Amino acid sequence: MSELRKDPIVERWVIISTERGKRPHDFKQEEQIKITGGFCPFDPGNEKYVPPEIYAVRAPGSQPNDPHWTLRVVPNKFPALGIEGDLDKHAVGLYDAMNGIGAHEVIIETPNHSETLDIMPLDRMKDVVFAYKARIEDLKKDKRMKYVLVFKNYGAVAGASLEHSHSQLIALPIIPKRPLELFSGAKTYFSYKDRCPFCDIIRQELNDKVRLIEETKHFVSITPFASRSPFEVSIFPKKHSTHFEFEDVEILYDFTYILQNTLKRLKIALDNPPYNFVLLNGAFIFDHDDYFHWHLEITPRLTKIAGFEWGSGFYINPTPPEDAAKYLREITL
Amino acid sequence: MSELRKDPIVERWVIISTERGKRPHDFKQEEQIKITGGFCPFDPGNEKYVPPEIYAVRAPGSQPNDPHWTLRVVPNKFPALGIEGDLDKHAVGLYDAMNGIGAHEVIIETPNHSETLDIMPLDRMKDVVFAYKARIEDLKKDKRMKYVLVFKNYGAVAGASLEHSHSQLIALPIIPKRPLELFSGAKTYFSYKDRCPFCDIIRQELNDKVRLIEETKHFVSITPFASRSPFEVSIFPKKHSTHFEFEDVEILYDFTYILQNTLKRLKIALDNPPYNFVLLNGAFIFDHDDYFHWHLEITPRLTKIAGFEWGSGFYINPTPPEDAAKYLREITL
Repeated sequence: MSELRKDPIVERWVIISTERGKRPHDFKQEEQIKITGGFCPFDPGNEKYVPPEIYAVRAPGSQPNDPHWTLRVVPNKFPALGIEGDLDKHAVGLYDAMNGIGAHEVIIETPNHSETLDIMPLDRMKDVVFAYKARIEDLKKDKRMKYVLVFKNYGAVAGASLEHSHSQLIALPIIPKRPLELFSGAKTYFSYKDRCPFCDIIRQELNDKVRLIEETKHFVSITPFASRSPFEVSIFPKKHSTHFEFEDVEILYDFTYILQNTLKRLKIALDNPPYNFVLLNGAFIFDHDDYFHWHLEITPRLTKIAGFEWGSGFYINPTPPEDAAKYLREITL
Repeated sequence: MSELRKDPIVERWVIISTERGKRPHDFKQEEQIKITGGFCPFDPGNEKYVPPEIYAVRAPGSQPNDPHWTLRVVPNKFPALGIEGDLDKHAVGLYDAMNGIGAHEVIIETPNHSETLDIMPLDRMKDVVFAYKARIEDLKKDKRMKYVLVFKNYGAVAGASLEHSHSQLIALPIIPKRPLELFSGAKTYFSYKDRCPFCDIIRQELNDKVRLIEETKHFVSITPFASRSPFEVSIFPKKHSTHFEFEDVEILYDFTYILQNTLKRLKIALDNPPYNFVLLNGAFIFDHDDYFHWHLEITPRLTKIAGFEWGSGFYINPTPPEDAAKYLREITL
């Protein structure tokens, strides 16, 4: 079983995979893995090559794990965490550790091997967004869990190991460092302004318009003022809301629309760049309703993360967010 | 002039390069840049292709910027920050910004194009370590500056844009996020234990020995308990010390020795991996003498940083640090 370990200085947990422990020569081989061409375990007809489905959108009358689906959620075949067992929180001298309990799932977004989110019919892309919601709601019932992280790696540079369009989620018995930082920073802001900082940001961006890409009925897409990397985009619901999974059908449909538009804009502007997106959502149980505001962050992978960034948490962004917003705003969809 | 911008939620500053702003097509071209072969601006005889030297180790009787040197420090030709001007701290609505004032220097570690730190005579590698010290001491005199970040990118994957062995430093008018987190976490630990957490870690690692790679008279090299990535190594002075630049000749010579040994071990174990190292040093003026302990962190670049890591600050490490330490410890030097 893998192990969750906490850094003794900062609030950061890591997963140490003790089971599939990699030795030095494993890393040398890694470069040769190719992600395109040949057999795809996510194609319809190949259902037996992945674990049985947890959730699906299927043709009427079809059966679980048969090929008549348009979306499936399956456990990751090589999960970073296992769902069975006790947390067994314990000390290792001055360090803290617990068992690697959690869920690691794959959302297979389409049956069509080459179809990507940006070109998918909106009605089927909406199924992807609703799958995120359904899975978060279900995993919330597991009282060992504290957070679900939904994310997507598109392109090999962004960490995708399979070409077939998919996203992933990891349910965790701890709140990861980044959301915790956002909660903590937002709380500090709230404590002296009595306002949600994200609501303030949205108001300012709608007013200034220089970092605004698109506004829909319920959402805005912007390039953050202090973007860490070029063409980084955040999508916020305009109305204060802590949890993605509490949004209703109308709002999530509008979210699907602005997300697809954003992906289209990035694809056209940057010639199909690799990207990551991550849903920065509220935690399962946390007193942050007043000051945290869920959002989705999209990062095209255009620059390398070098020693400076890694060591300092300090980023050099060669594209002012105002320029990036202008390029993206002026794309004809 | 570039701009320093602060994230409104978390304590993170970024540099926005407004001058050499990159447009979408600039990123498409970037893949084609090659770093090996041909003309090298760091080779002796090519001094005129880089800005005039700030510091050097030279043959007796030689002149600044002539080719008779064994080490040079020069300003980065494409600096992320400029040394001239006022900080001009200002608000942009709810956001905070200041001018991109700072220094960005390159330490050309050797006159020999293909010589790397791990194979360099120890006496010349010591000059590299002393150059770090001398430059930090000099930059400290600039009252606008708060921190110097010394780092090295080795190999294209780790962000090196030139093959010739070099490291870099950036002097900043702010304390970057990562050191600030370390100061803050260490302070919390100190506040309830009244001990430096790093001293406690060193004591435990010397006792347990499972994550210990090497111990010298003044230093230890270990694989951190909650390593974010495989074969990550930290080198700590055994005696509590906040600032690298306050160490004396004997200690810095011993540091050079253990650093070179560590780089040799990584090269042999991992077949010359790309790596980053970063000096996590104390700040210029900060009340952290009791609880912060300088160290150097080396990260071989073996795994990709994907959406999950970027979005969550949560890392999956496929090599237990105990296994990594054993491999590195057992290398014959």
